Amino acid sequence: MKRVVIVGVGFGGLRAARILAGKGLEVLLIDRQNYHLFQPLLYQVATASLEQESIAYPIRALTRRWKGVSFRLVEVCGADLVNRKLLIAGGAIDYDYLILAAGSVTNFFGLVSIERHAYDLKTLDHAVDLRNQILGSFEKAARESDPAHRRALLTFVIVGGGPTGIEFAGALQELIRYVLAKDYPELHVAETRIILIEATDHLLAALPGELQIYALEKLRQMGVEVLLSTRVSGAEPDRVLLADGTAIPAHTLFWSAGVNAVPLASALSPAKAANGRIPVEPDLTLAGHPEVFVIGDMAYLEQDGAPLPMVAPVAMQQGEYAGKAVLLKNLNRPVVPFRYRDKGTMATIGRSAAVATAFGINVAGFLAWIVWLGLHLMYLVGFRNRILVLLNWAFYYFLHESQIRLITRKDEGGRCQ
Amino acid sequence: MKRVVIVGVGFGGLRAARILAGKGLEVLLIDRQNYHLFQPLLYQVATASLEQESIAYPIRALTRRWKGVSFRLVEVCGADLVNRKLLIAGGAIDYDYLILAAGSVTNFFGLVSIERHAYDLKTLDHAVDLRNQILGSFEKAARESDPAHRRALLTFVIVGGGPTGIEFAGALQELIRYVLAKDYPELHVAETRIILIEATDHLLAALPGELQIYALEKLRQMGVEVLLSTRVSGAEPDRVLLADGTAIPAHTLFWSAGVNAVPLASALSPAKAANGRIPVEPDLTLAGHPEVFVIGDMAYLEQDGAPLPMVAPVAMQQGEYAGKAVLLKNLNRPVVPFRYRDKGTMATIGRSAAVATAFGINVAGFLAWIVWLGLHLMYLVGFRNRILVLLNWAFYYFLHESQIRLITRKDEGGRCQ
Repeated sequence: MKRVVIVGVGFGGLRAARILAGKGLEVLLIDRQNYHLFQPLLYQVATASLEQESIAYPIRALTRRWKGVSFRLVEVCGADLVNRKLLIAGGAIDYDYLILAAGSVTNFFGLVSIERHAYDLKTLDHAVDLRNQILGSFEKAARESDPAHRRALLTFVIVGGGPTGIEFAGALQELIRYVLAKDYPELHVAETRIILIEATDHLLAALPGELQIYALEKLRQMGVEVLLSTRVSGAEPDRVLLADGTAIPAHTLFWSAGVNAVPLASALSPAKAANGRIPVEPDLTLAGHPEVFVIGDMAYLEQDGAPLPMVAPVAMQQGEYAGKAVLLKNLNRPVVPFRYRDKGTMATIGRSAAVATAFGINVAGFLAWIVWLGLHLMYLVGFRNRILVLLNWAFYYFLHESQIRLITRKDEGGRCQ
Repeated sequence: MKRVVIVGVGFGGLRAARILAGKGLEVLLIDRQNYHLFQPLLYQVATASLEQESIAYPIRALTRRWKGVSFRLVEVCGADLVNRKLLIAGGAIDYDYLILAAGSVTNFFGLVSIERHAYDLKTLDHAVDLRNQILGSFEKAARESDPAHRRALLTFVIVGGGPTGIEFAGALQELIRYVLAKDYPELHVAETRIILIEATDHLLAALPGELQIYALEKLRQMGVEVLLSTRVSGAEPDRVLLADGTAIPAHTLFWSAGVNAVPLASALSPAKAANGRIPVEPDLTLAGHPEVFVIGDMAYLEQDGAPLPMVAPVAMQQGEYAGKAVLLKNLNRPVVPFRYRDKGTMATIGRSAAVATAFGINVAGFLAWIVWLGLHLMYLVGFRNRILVLLNWAFYYFLHESQIRLITRKDEGGRCQ
């Protein structure tokens, strides 16, 4: 039986596996985590709106229903492409087809001080760390008598005006206004600052101008300070440094300015394109290796003169394509080139406020928000998770109350000497 | 305004605060965590049946509804009883009344090797660590080719035949039988072992003999190996050592053989009773300090010739008593001695199987299980938490499926060198 090995169980790898299940091939999924993570909602875990368990789904709960598909929790170190061997920690696995779908990591653009001090959002642990940092800062501020120090504890700097930065900024502002303001009568909401910094002169580069302006105005109206055409150059534990020499006193820096393909990409391909991605052929395979697919954030492919973006919809479509392409190749049948169908882009800013563009139609406000909610629920894996997320959203929307504001795994209590 | 300081927001401290809220006193709650934890269900977090967030409730969500009650997240280091000052990290707080309710820690009986290698269940982080260890052991076993090593990875030793040990043993066996057996087709359930070790010749010392026997038989029928009259003397990373010289190859040791009052108790009182507890007067105050109450697991009080047990119902009743006693003392009115009303004891063994005794009536089986479920839901704080727990139980009961089997914050993947 031919063996297909899929590296990474994100949006791409998961869809490839689903296509290949029960088709008479031996499919092995490999990941460093034992769950599929719904990354688009990580920011809601970080802002205490969702419990971490509701956006993760155990991979073995899927593989046990998928015939011929098994899972191994192990790190992939590289590949011997000539001999068709995937190198894993402590061994190697032979493959007939390989689908590389290990995703991306945060791009700190070589800014070492930022990598050391900033929070980012690529994993569940990141989200919980950020939640602990936000809530812990409020607890520290509640014990702090020096006004300047207290204000620095309550200043949150967000770098990157893409969907993640915007959604996080809006959700954090709502957490503060609706929940924390009531939790901390000893603090004043006016002392808190949320500063969103973007290097270009507009937010949400992937959306049309009118929606960019809507998002900007909505955020400012919510009380988020948006600094456009501003660059961050470094960070210290208690301040963020701008390229123009200004220092913003702040204990929390969230970095969502970009992503790079996972470092594994370097171990697999000498050729490299923008953001550390691996250039692929029109059928998503490596040049000279028609049995090796690279999909999602790891892959670099241009379409109509522009590179495909590193976003979930591309990974999903490429995952389905790769699964089907393996089946066709296995039958020695021809494969048509991959073509991404852009179904639209969206981002939510706050309750009842989102922006969306699809099929040339631009929507902003409540309708876009409802569509955003529905689509996110739809793509979430697992019936139970959908129920949990829906319940949490309803509680939060109607009761203005988030009960997940727990500080775990972090020592913010002040300790005896 | 007179100030009441309550140390610890467990079952006792929480109830004292609720009584004192809105009564014209300044009440300050202090804890090292920012949430109240429902400890009786920690074992279900450890066995992947409940998400950690569903058994914790943010303290500030309570204090913002309780008039005159505030919260501070800080560690308590000691007290200057003469000058009525509570010593906290980085400062001191004056009090008029002090209620000490900081609970207990696991008692390892001075066995250093066990303290180093064993898991215990007193905090949320403990529960998540134990869950990660259980699931991680299965993943490691799935990659392990040596049968003896695999068997050691799949052997779980539980020490202590009290409610925690029994409930954990039963829940772990169900997790393995109903969920993990299907998740890991590459492993055989017959390779897994759960060994429950108890030093005395019976389980559940607080229950009548017939229920002890029911529990023992039920556990054995479920496939748990129960070793009575057996003592554990030490542990290594891959084995558990018995007092008779036997070694059980096992990578997971769970210790629930007893508890001691928190170390803070030593800093507060020179007098010390069994389990490091502080002896108290009949009105739960410290001798010579009618303004200082000690309640729950920290307090030692005898009733009808026997010490009160270190269990939640005692802490709850003492918390209510202490709250009311403060109000009475503040009005210079007399306080009657505390008297514990034993409403019964219960433990659940598995689905549809629990044991309970109340008002001289002993119940075992389905009825006791339903009562157990209802009481636990009732005592859980927060409407949302009750819904979540109920939903999870229903999913688990009817679908035999637990979706929280995530390995977080732990590196079990096997790493590249």
